[in-house]
Amino acid sequence: MDDNIKKALAEIVGKENVTDRLIDMVSYSYDSSEHSHRPDCAVWATTTEQVSRIMKLANENKIPVIPRGAGTGLSGMAVPVKGGIVLDLVRMDKIKKISIEDRFAIVEPGVVYADLDKALAPSGFCFPPDPGSGTVCTLGGNVATNAGGVKGAKYGTTRDYILGLEVVLADGRVMKTGSSTIKCVSGFDLTRLIVGSEGTLGIVTEITMKINPKPIATATAVATFNELGDAGNAVTQIMSSGIIPAVMEIMDRPTIQAINQNTDLGLPEVDAMLLVETDGYTQGEADFQLEKIIDVFNANNPLEVTQATSKEEALDLWMARKSAYAVLARIQTHFMLEDVTVPMGKIADLLRGIGDISKKYDLQIATFGHAGDGNLHPQILFDGYNPDEVARTEKAVEELFQLSIDLNGTLTGEHGIGIAKAPFMSMEHDDVEMDVMRTLKQAFDPNNILNPGKMALEVS
Amino acid sequence: MDDNIKKALAEIVGKENVTDRLIDMVSYSYDSSEHSHRPDCAVWATTTEQVSRIMKLANENKIPVIPRGAGTGLSGMAVPVKGGIVLDLVRMDKIKKISIEDRFAIVEPGVVYADLDKALAPSGFCFPPDPGSGTVCTLGGNVATNAGGVKGAKYGTTRDYILGLEVVLADGRVMKTGSSTIKCVSGFDLTRLIVGSEGTLGIVTEITMKINPKPIATATAVATFNELGDAGNAVTQIMSSGIIPAVMEIMDRPTIQAINQNTDLGLPEVDAMLLVETDGYTQGEADFQLEKIIDVFNANNPLEVTQATSKEEALDLWMARKSAYAVLARIQTHFMLEDVTVPMGKIADLLRGIGDISKKYDLQIATFGHAGDGNLHPQILFDGYNPDEVARTEKAVEELFQLSIDLNGTLTGEHGIGIAKAPFMSMEHDDVEMDVMRTLKQAFDPNNILNPGKMALEVS
Repeated sequence: MDDNIKKALAEIVGKENVTDRLIDMVSYSYDSSEHSHRPDCAVWATTTEQVSRIMKLANENKIPVIPRGAGTGLSGMAVPVKGGIVLDLVRMDKIKKISIEDRFAIVEPGVVYADLDKALAPSGFCFPPDPGSGTVCTLGGNVATNAGGVKGAKYGTTRDYILGLEVVLADGRVMKTGSSTIKCVSGFDLTRLIVGSEGTLGIVTEITMKINPKPIATATAVATFNELGDAGNAVTQIMSSGIIPAVMEIMDRPTIQAINQNTDLGLPEVDAMLLVETDGYTQGEADFQLEKIIDVFNANNPLEVTQATSKEEALDLWMARKSAYAVLARIQTHFMLEDVTVPMGKIADLLRGIGDISKKYDLQIATFGHAGDGNLHPQILFDGYNPDEVARTEKAVEELFQLSIDLNGTLTGEHGIGIAKAPFMSMEHDDVEMDVMRTLKQAFDPNNILNPGKMALEVS
Repeated sequence: MDDNIKKALAEIVGKENVTDRLIDMVSYSYDSSEHSHRPDCAVWATTTEQVSRIMKLANENKIPVIPRGAGTGLSGMAVPVKGGIVLDLVRMDKIKKISIEDRFAIVEPGVVYADLDKALAPSGFCFPPDPGSGTVCTLGGNVATNAGGVKGAKYGTTRDYILGLEVVLADGRVMKTGSSTIKCVSGFDLTRLIVGSEGTLGIVTEITMKINPKPIATATAVATFNELGDAGNAVTQIMSSGIIPAVMEIMDRPTIQAINQNTDLGLPEVDAMLLVETDGYTQGEADFQLEKIIDVFNANNPLEVTQATSKEEALDLWMARKSAYAVLARIQTHFMLEDVTVPMGKIADLLRGIGDISKKYDLQIATFGHAGDGNLHPQILFDGYNPDEVARTEKAVEELFQLSIDLNGTLTGEHGIGIAKAPFMSMEHDDVEMDVMRTLKQAFDPNNILNPGKMALEVS
């Protein structure tokens, strides 16, 4: 990168807020995926005006710009595969407004999810998406990836709450979308076109989001099943019963075994474990729903059904599920955490298929996830220094995606496409849809400088 | 229109499904707005393939195509302002699939909202948006306009439920968007770009929607207030209390007076009446919420608070609100039903401002609507044969829009832009956003044949 560009960046954000030091370039080369590539430099922006001027400069000089929050994305969307400028937004971290009576908050993109949660807590409100990385991830990243979480079935994902955005376009122009009203149908829904676009259409510099009252009462239970089919039937019957659990998590046998081998939780080694939580304003409401669910469990040959009788017991029941990701991550040198998603009636089929893939490629695959919305997380554990195992993992991932599509599912329920799933986009999307996506990309970013190399948007 | 075009259309859909008879052209010249303009012909399509061939023909010959459902839109989106072909989709009325366990339904665009509701009823599920015209409007129209209803605050609007679409593009290509999974973040959210685009980006030929269990228990109450400010404070305090009522409707004094003059309901003539409904799985849950709301009512100087003790009493309380639109529609030769929407804390200000506009232009304006999401319906009653009154109405409407924008609101919460609000788009949207919308329109429909003349999308 030309030194003049770095000088121009320094003029915009101040010398101390531009870096091309090797240690920083290495830090900015990766995110929470398996991918990495160094940028040419990184800048910390603190105002929309700075972002606008950076984009104008980058656009005129056709330099890639990669917006970045906390780097917790699992699909490589923050990796600067084409070099260029990493635009770090974590210092745009002001909560600009909270209006409880109007049910909205306005924040800058660098605000950490948990910090908004803390700020909302005294009023009894929350921003519901609740991603797994909530203690560290930024709200700008949540918007860019349309982040989801364990409560998606009942409370939806990020896009269901975003009312309006401020977006800096590729050429530096600043666009306001949406409204701060709960309902708005004025013009095209540009807000939701930007949500989930992974920084390829514009840089989000302000977010207006709907907030919700936090449920007061909850009820929790766990059921274990010796047969995958029984657990699958239980999920199907719960969904058909008219109860939408706030949480319905599933863990398979490999996950349970791995947890047992690495903790002293001593879980029963069964085919599947289901954890459910119901909620409401009143304990009676939460209990009514849980009773219906327990009836379904009992009708499907459970090994055991445990209902929490206190908040502490509920936390104990949660312990296994909450530890799954981290426990599994430590077992091998490397892992891939996928998030294939299928209609809920296909969950048992998906788990069975994953078992077959695990055997076929001789790989340890542990699966857990959100049975209430069909979003499962097969975590493939592999030795990243063993080329043969890496090759088998790559084949297994491709087969996993095909399995999900064959079951009428999607490549990604909440982790996004980024680099990791870009090669598989055409498995899910037909030529017409791919062409329309590319046409939109071209219309928004004719020089292809906004997070290039992601989502298979390059016209070939 | 060239006779060869009509012949070509007859080849696609059959001679009996093309018409240019005067009586049909008059019927297709209007919708539920004040606008009208005759098309050159109309066709009834029954398959996606027919729609695709019609679009290809129209695109090659640069002929406008105006998709149409039941014509219940209030902003003129189905009026063929530039002539061309009305593409009537009401005969594409198959419910293709209902999967309760997977929480989705797949329908053709001509299915009437109430017919899906009926088909879902035995399972205890519903498609929640519940627009006011639900007994006659089509689901394709709901998608095209992102239709809302009385339960928007708690249950959202159409876009919150649409999982995927089949869309015929301007050039006849057929695009599938989204998925049938509850969560999907694979690629741009083209689904929601199409939802609410009023037929200007493509023709929806199939809809996959999420469905919800219908609440079992409800509780209903009405409160009357002698002072607008007290009602406004009550709304604000309810929203801040952490209760999101399933319904919170408001009617102002002119609405109440008009209902009294035209029915024997004998309502108290007060500044404002609030109707609330809460719901849940259990009666205890619904009652708990209603009690909190009644506490707020009682703290804000109500004239009277009435709680329904039976389903019959609840229906009686609903009677006034349900009759408002139709009663008001009969008072004068013409009316305009607007749907300005503001943050909930601004509802009293909006009602006061409407009162001022009513006085200034000497016009009868009765306002009712959805206090829970800030979406109000000022219904302006005027003599459409009195040019002076028409001129005053036009000025009043413009001032009403400016009032809403000044209160940080939007032109339209649920009725859409169409022709009626197109001249006011730039009041709400800045030049950059308008330019992006027009760029998208251009990318999707370079010949501007898809419902032209709507939403201020023409590049000037």
